[in-house]
Amino acid sequence: MSHKIMAINAGSSSLKFQLLAMPQGTAICQGLIERIGMVNAQVTIKTPTQKWQETLPMADHREAVALLLEKLIDYQIINALNDITGVGHRVAHGGESFKDSALITDETLAQIEHLAELAPLHNPVNVIGIKVFRQLLPNTPSVAVFDTAFHQTLDEPAYIYPLPWRYYAELGIRRYGFHGTSHKYVSATLAEKLGVPLSALRIVCCHLGNGSSICAIKGGQSVNTSMGFTPQSGVMMGTRSGDIDPSILPWIAQREGKTPQQLNHLLNNESGLLGVSGISSDYRDVEQAADSGNRQAALALTLFAERIRATIGSYIMQMGGLDVLLFTGGIGENSSRARSAICHNLHFLGLAIDEEKNQRNSTFIQTDNAMVKVAVINTNEELMIAQDVMRIALTETAAFCVPA
Amino acid sequence: MSHKIMAINAGSSSLKFQLLAMPQGTAICQGLIERIGMVNAQVTIKTPTQKWQETLPMADHREAVALLLEKLIDYQIINALNDITGVGHRVAHGGESFKDSALITDETLAQIEHLAELAPLHNPVNVIGIKVFRQLLPNTPSVAVFDTAFHQTLDEPAYIYPLPWRYYAELGIRRYGFHGTSHKYVSATLAEKLGVPLSALRIVCCHLGNGSSICAIKGGQSVNTSMGFTPQSGVMMGTRSGDIDPSILPWIAQREGKTPQQLNHLLNNESGLLGVSGISSDYRDVEQAADSGNRQAALALTLFAERIRATIGSYIMQMGGLDVLLFTGGIGENSSRARSAICHNLHFLGLAIDEEKNQRNSTFIQTDNAMVKVAVINTNEELMIAQDVMRIALTETAAFCVPA
Repeated sequence: MSHKIMAINAGSSSLKFQLLAMPQGTAICQGLIERIGMVNAQVTIKTPTQKWQETLPMADHREAVALLLEKLIDYQIINALNDITGVGHRVAHGGESFKDSALITDETLAQIEHLAELAPLHNPVNVIGIKVFRQLLPNTPSVAVFDTAFHQTLDEPAYIYPLPWRYYAELGIRRYGFHGTSHKYVSATLAEKLGVPLSALRIVCCHLGNGSSICAIKGGQSVNTSMGFTPQSGVMMGTRSGDIDPSILPWIAQREGKTPQQLNHLLNNESGLLGVSGISSDYRDVEQAADSGNRQAALALTLFAERIRATIGSYIMQMGGLDVLLFTGGIGENSSRARSAICHNLHFLGLAIDEEKNQRNSTFIQTDNAMVKVAVINTNEELMIAQDVMRIALTETAAFCVPA
Repeated sequence: MSHKIMAINAGSSSLKFQLLAMPQGTAICQGLIERIGMVNAQVTIKTPTQKWQETLPMADHREAVALLLEKLIDYQIINALNDITGVGHRVAHGGESFKDSALITDETLAQIEHLAELAPLHNPVNVIGIKVFRQLLPNTPSVAVFDTAFHQTLDEPAYIYPLPWRYYAELGIRRYGFHGTSHKYVSATLAEKLGVPLSALRIVCCHLGNGSSICAIKGGQSVNTSMGFTPQSGVMMGTRSGDIDPSILPWIAQREGKTPQQLNHLLNNESGLLGVSGISSDYRDVEQAADSGNRQAALALTLFAERIRATIGSYIMQMGGLDVLLFTGGIGENSSRARSAICHNLHFLGLAIDEEKNQRNSTFIQTDNAMVKVAVINTNEELMIAQDVMRIALTETAAFCVPA
């Protein structure tokens, strides 16, 4: 039986959605509602053959979801609301409570709300998205898919910070990691394409986009990842610094009288490619500036690559070697320049890329005689969310309906 | 001609000294004055055959140095003050101004004072030490030996942080690195012992003590190092956290209302081995607790080793391989357990240690067929300081005296 599954990613003033036909995994429609809460909110809905766009006032997320469902019927994408047989919600933080995606119940919803302490900007908004869909589609099962869950397999030495113990024991400060849905999806897809079981592979997965994170995946399990307690840390990103000497923060706070909120803004919104280049947070803009001779832009690109290389090196130490270096995310999938900068001079590891294949964004871009494979795989978090809805909400539902 | 050179390390309430016969490099005497500024200051002076200790009130560093010089004559270690032909001062921070040790003049002294902004706890105290010796030994040349100078060879991508550019350009926030004197000394000694020129070696040097730092040395030059803008960052230490997700700091500041000063204390004095084990900042105490079954202590030791391994891996990526892994500092020289934990499971790098040699703290502890050498070399910052005094103050003086 075919299902129509809605995958939802709710932001503070936006709602990204995709309706997928499952188990085929094809997108029926997708789109975005932006500027929720403003008089000029914008709704974009695309099917493989058509596109609608509209600007209108929109009070809140409830109105946004109601409008979306109405439009899906209007545009004859679905015939009735109960055509949607499941909803999957991307949720930023699952803390230590959620080691897998979870069927949404009053109890799981309360737990997600409780975890807002760890992700104050994201979990409350995710909760709003979940609640609105539950109201409008009360009979449709929904599933929370956590950005953190895939990394719950990390061992203590990978997730404990060298801080006084009570910060972990009482306040939950530890490495959680993010982008788990993406790392899980592309590593599983890689194993399929290679025809090798995940259990036999040591992968370093580079999810490089506006936010970037690196993940060490051994035998299908995340054993380390570069984002930590927050998604600000790890490698350098578009506007986020990634790891820096922590003592820089109290130094700046004293020197410039910055509040904790201002420090967060500095680390999250003013740093990274934007901060170093002084040009843009977008890799392509920085690339263009570097090519026109901008020295800081060129340095920003080098820094970006070097910090990723350093992380790859540390994960190779942890896993005792490397079978596949995997690229995904907007930059990872599309920038041959970034991949080239990351992979240069690694012959000593048995790793080298074929520049011609790299330019074409081929699935495998290593040279013929390289020992380490280098792969480029498009991520698809919506598909992973829909698959988790099927696995968690609908096989169980199905099981309940089928006589034993 | 033989020289007597005094090597000085001034702390906020202490003065560590060693008098060396140069160029032989042998210690004539060494000692420590502690609790300067208190009524029960303590003076300890040791020669190879004798030891004196005294408790007495001491107002300030000037009194401490005056007393030290008086005692050296009293104890017939020197005959007169001008027996001391040069003084070398360890100085914490040389910023970007000092790429080598420097003869102390009014100008260099002013520069060191100016750099107090970057090292507010250390440079002012170092300056006091320098000034007092200049007053009491006005005709003796003195040299400043900077903890940072060896790392001034780092390339931009190794020292620039992904912060807004003005933090580097206007405020000098960058990676400086510390322990430079030690890294330089042991890497040079290693090359001598190997009979291989430094220019041919890629070394990762682990200075592990109360403070710990790792340095990547290629062709004799520091190309990366784990301490950064401050000596708090990098690997995990006795009481310092090393690198953590920077966003943890604003989170804690908001949650617990901590000031920048309190955050500094947390990162520098309450974390590291002490914070995780809850037992002690001393590796040996933590080892003992781990052996008695303390779980947090065992975790602290594992974390300590894993964070060093990660750093080693990142430097191997940067240098394109590794010829020698080098251990020094209190833990690096004496703890076979730490070395063993850091070197386990690295056969894939051609690195393995011979446990029997490791237990004996042999100079070379790799297995016979290992491609990567693993060395244990005792650091001697005082000797390095004395050598720099000879090279910078006394060969120049000599040159002035010799007719052209």
